[in-house]
Amino acid sequence: MPKIKKDKGKLRIIPLGGLSEIGKNLTVIEYENDIIAVDCGLAFPDEDMLGVDLVIPDVTYLEQNQDRLRGIFLTHGHEDHIGALPYVLRTINPPVYGTKLTVGIIKNKLEEHSLPWNPDLRVVSAGDTIRAGSLNVEFIRVNHSIADACALAIHTPLGTIVHTGDFKLDITPIQGEMMNLTRFGELGRKGVLMLMCESTNAERPGFTPSEKKVGKSLEYIFTTNPTKRIVISTFSSNVHRVQQIINISAQHGRKVAVTGRSMLNIVGAAVELGYMKVPKDVLIDIGDIKRYKPEQLTLVTTGSQGEPMSALYRMAYSEHSQVTLGRSDLVVLSSSAIPGNEKLVGRVINELSRNGVEVLHDASLAVHVSGHACQEELKLMQALTQPRYFMPIHGENRHLAANRELAREMGIPDKNIFLSEIGKVLEIDSKGARFAGTVPAGQVLVDGYGVGDVGNIVLRDRKHLSQDGLIVVVATVDEDSSLLLSGPDIVSRGFVYVRENEELMEEAKRVVQKSLERCLGKGKNLDRMHLKNTVRDDLSKFLFTKTGRKPMILPVIMNI
Amino acid sequence: MPKIKKDKGKLRIIPLGGLSEIGKNLTVIEYENDIIAVDCGLAFPDEDMLGVDLVIPDVTYLEQNQDRLRGIFLTHGHEDHIGALPYVLRTINPPVYGTKLTVGIIKNKLEEHSLPWNPDLRVVSAGDTIRAGSLNVEFIRVNHSIADACALAIHTPLGTIVHTGDFKLDITPIQGEMMNLTRFGELGRKGVLMLMCESTNAERPGFTPSEKKVGKSLEYIFTTNPTKRIVISTFSSNVHRVQQIINISAQHGRKVAVTGRSMLNIVGAAVELGYMKVPKDVLIDIGDIKRYKPEQLTLVTTGSQGEPMSALYRMAYSEHSQVTLGRSDLVVLSSSAIPGNEKLVGRVINELSRNGVEVLHDASLAVHVSGHACQEELKLMQALTQPRYFMPIHGENRHLAANRELAREMGIPDKNIFLSEIGKVLEIDSKGARFAGTVPAGQVLVDGYGVGDVGNIVLRDRKHLSQDGLIVVVATVDEDSSLLLSGPDIVSRGFVYVRENEELMEEAKRVVQKSLERCLGKGKNLDRMHLKNTVRDDLSKFLFTKTGRKPMILPVIMNI
Repeated sequence: MPKIKKDKGKLRIIPLGGLSEIGKNLTVIEYENDIIAVDCGLAFPDEDMLGVDLVIPDVTYLEQNQDRLRGIFLTHGHEDHIGALPYVLRTINPPVYGTKLTVGIIKNKLEEHSLPWNPDLRVVSAGDTIRAGSLNVEFIRVNHSIADACALAIHTPLGTIVHTGDFKLDITPIQGEMMNLTRFGELGRKGVLMLMCESTNAERPGFTPSEKKVGKSLEYIFTTNPTKRIVISTFSSNVHRVQQIINISAQHGRKVAVTGRSMLNIVGAAVELGYMKVPKDVLIDIGDIKRYKPEQLTLVTTGSQGEPMSALYRMAYSEHSQVTLGRSDLVVLSSSAIPGNEKLVGRVINELSRNGVEVLHDASLAVHVSGHACQEELKLMQALTQPRYFMPIHGENRHLAANRELAREMGIPDKNIFLSEIGKVLEIDSKGARFAGTVPAGQVLVDGYGVGDVGNIVLRDRKHLSQDGLIVVVATVDEDSSLLLSGPDIVSRGFVYVRENEELMEEAKRVVQKSLERCLGKGKNLDRMHLKNTVRDDLSKFLFTKTGRKPMILPVIMNI
Repeated sequence: MPKIKKDKGKLRIIPLGGLSEIGKNLTVIEYENDIIAVDCGLAFPDEDMLGVDLVIPDVTYLEQNQDRLRGIFLTHGHEDHIGALPYVLRTINPPVYGTKLTVGIIKNKLEEHSLPWNPDLRVVSAGDTIRAGSLNVEFIRVNHSIADACALAIHTPLGTIVHTGDFKLDITPIQGEMMNLTRFGELGRKGVLMLMCESTNAERPGFTPSEKKVGKSLEYIFTTNPTKRIVISTFSSNVHRVQQIINISAQHGRKVAVTGRSMLNIVGAAVELGYMKVPKDVLIDIGDIKRYKPEQLTLVTTGSQGEPMSALYRMAYSEHSQVTLGRSDLVVLSSSAIPGNEKLVGRVINELSRNGVEVLHDASLAVHVSGHACQEELKLMQALTQPRYFMPIHGENRHLAANRELAREMGIPDKNIFLSEIGKVLEIDSKGARFAGTVPAGQVLVDGYGVGDVGNIVLRDRKHLSQDGLIVVVATVDEDSSLLLSGPDIVSRGFVYVRENEELMEEAKRVVQKSLERCLGKGKNLDRMHLKNTVRDDLSKFLFTKTGRKPMILPVIMNI
């Protein structure tokens, strides 16, 4: 087991996101006066975060220590690794390092946001090492479901931290090289202090298949469906997948039309930056598809998660301006449903089935492979790097626990495995490693333009409103005499269909009238709080008895 | 292909639920003056039916024709086949036929509902034929994930309709017999007019494994975990699963404690009715588990879908009064997540993992098998019954389409395959079969005590409220002079956290003030609608510019 180098300093590893959750990956690594951040991703809201658009990490710690922050180092261009940057760069402006495609995607994103400064984006290549104060950050090629992905080796005075980012081993990648196993092995021989390893597929045995496997399935589909128009939906960032679709289409004499905003964006960027090679005259504009027969066409589209505004969704529901699907179409979902999206995806499949469209998805054929390492690859990473310490990252608790189990199998002693949490500080010095306190961490909700102005109280109210709706009770009261001048009026929304329940609403009004009479007109000063509570309690009891529901009740008492 | 018998009458087949959806199974079969219904199930609400508890079929057609309704025939005791009965029996009271366990479960359910009459529940056995006017309904044993399940052969003057209910072929069932293949074959030889066949697993190739397979996996788990307490969560209605758990526990010298209301109910009923055999001294009360060591205990619990109030959920979140889980526990999820429940199930697994509890689920070991026929079994049913007509039922469009595909493979001509919809009438007479009109059909939403009082408008409002919350604007106006007497006041819920956004709310108030001033005090009669619309539009525009959100705005104008 590698030893810790002798040095007086203290190394601190602080995950600010990506642990006990999928997404918003962000890890802080700190040696004395120098801080770096690895990735800066977003997460998609849970179904109980009603109305929330996205979730970003709390970066208070980076803001408070921005004088020591030497850079943000990005492993690859997926949203869960870069998506929080447009928000985080509003308050801090460190150098941001990433490979060409990653930086290309960020530039694209930042055009939709206004920042108080020009961001300092710096393009690096796999193999490069960037000096960040006393830390040296080395980019190492890995395979993943987006091109140009890297792991990082962070060389510190106490030893080397390997941070895998997201990775898989693809021995036959579509473009670019196989992940740099040799370099991980060299680092292992020299001694790796800490391996921080992604955990997404830690529950899955074996190896993740090569992206090439999808090509074989597509080849089979194209060969066996020579008369149909083929519509393929996939993740827009999966440049290699789109490349394969283009290649196979060209071989079968088909033109390829691309639809969906993010697909157009990424295909454009990938071609421009040289990550995709398109044979001449294969790509056509979606507006020109009418000039070709079904068997001469392949459509590549967004919407593989069943997203309601996506191109595939609009096609399925006959709302797409250029494409109507029918019996002469074959739709291929070259993707898997992200947990939570199963029902959305199912809806699109059902609507397509209803319209007689044939649908192939990953349950019926191997039309998708994961971008993440399975158990054997995760163990391979451990075997090559032979780390002293191990920290599973990037995953829910079940994934982190499964990855820890793999480390145990590989012989790393329990005391050297650190299952951390966001905000939890792991401190390493020449004597060893231990948890030592916490820093601010958590989730910041983005809703519309608002960043962080929606919190638990707002979400609790939205939840309450969504379940049983709302009753507003309004009355105007004379402030001096405490006499009822007008009302009570009752307005409801989302509670019952009022026209068919007029009697109930009239009864409710009488209940409120009685409550008001009990509290008012006694010549005393008006206790508004008491009045509101009485109205709320009485009405709530009445409505629950009648309907079994507990709508939110908002009493508004106006004074004159 | 079997011929249609000569007869002057018309046979009508009308699905009222279970097509293009999972759940609320209900099929009407009608010959001249006689109507029967097959099953009367509920569905669980979609995630966009906010606050809705459950969904039942619209049975207007049965209500309008109750004088001709000879009975409701139940295939088995699952909620999606019997769950609407307590609601439907409020307005009609036909005889209800089912096997012993099915009727036992209904009796249990009806205790929680008050009906205007004593329901007419009649127990039948597999093999029985019930006369329903000119129709004769024969119950035929099938295998399924609940005991005592039957298919129906409905003998009509025009020929026999086979309605499969839900089924699988289990050659080695835990209790009771293998499904009565011979009888289906006999019917096929005599000539089956129509096969109505369930479609749940029509996308899955092969055969569904026997329930015995789960027993082998459980045996392996018990043998390899001799020191842990084993906690197994499964569907409470899967009596055979629970029987296997009890048997294996007894063999390994473990006591079994049952927890969760529905599990206690069903195990009680199953033991009482003879569907489960419990060795002496094996079952103990959950309150007595402290008297045993972990390795002497098996707990059987509800909560396999991650339901927030279930026993397993409460155990995971340390809210269960008798059970606290930790490192000495192994939790087995002997179930699969129903589509839409994946995240709920995931949460429970994560929380257990966080607490160091080992979790096994169907991704890691074969601890669950489906209760529904896969493709080969569906084809076997067709091969045995050799029907003239085929109608896929019980499934979403994707499943119905897949089942149709199987019928095509089996050689049933396209013109004899009927993909129907709820409310759509298939008419059969001696000349053939054709769609002929529709009857009322749809979904009735149950929310609290309300049946049908929540519809699209209420749901749209709940959705709106859930996304961006609510702003109530209140003002009191002098009716004669159109002068503002009090207000405007603004109350918000679920919009922003008000304490941190006082400035925004003050600005909003000024916007409303201006709108009111523009409309009021002009000496003219007050146009309340115009006033409300102006306030709503102005405020909505202002808030969207500031926050990117569109809360529901409710202007309430009081007159004095």
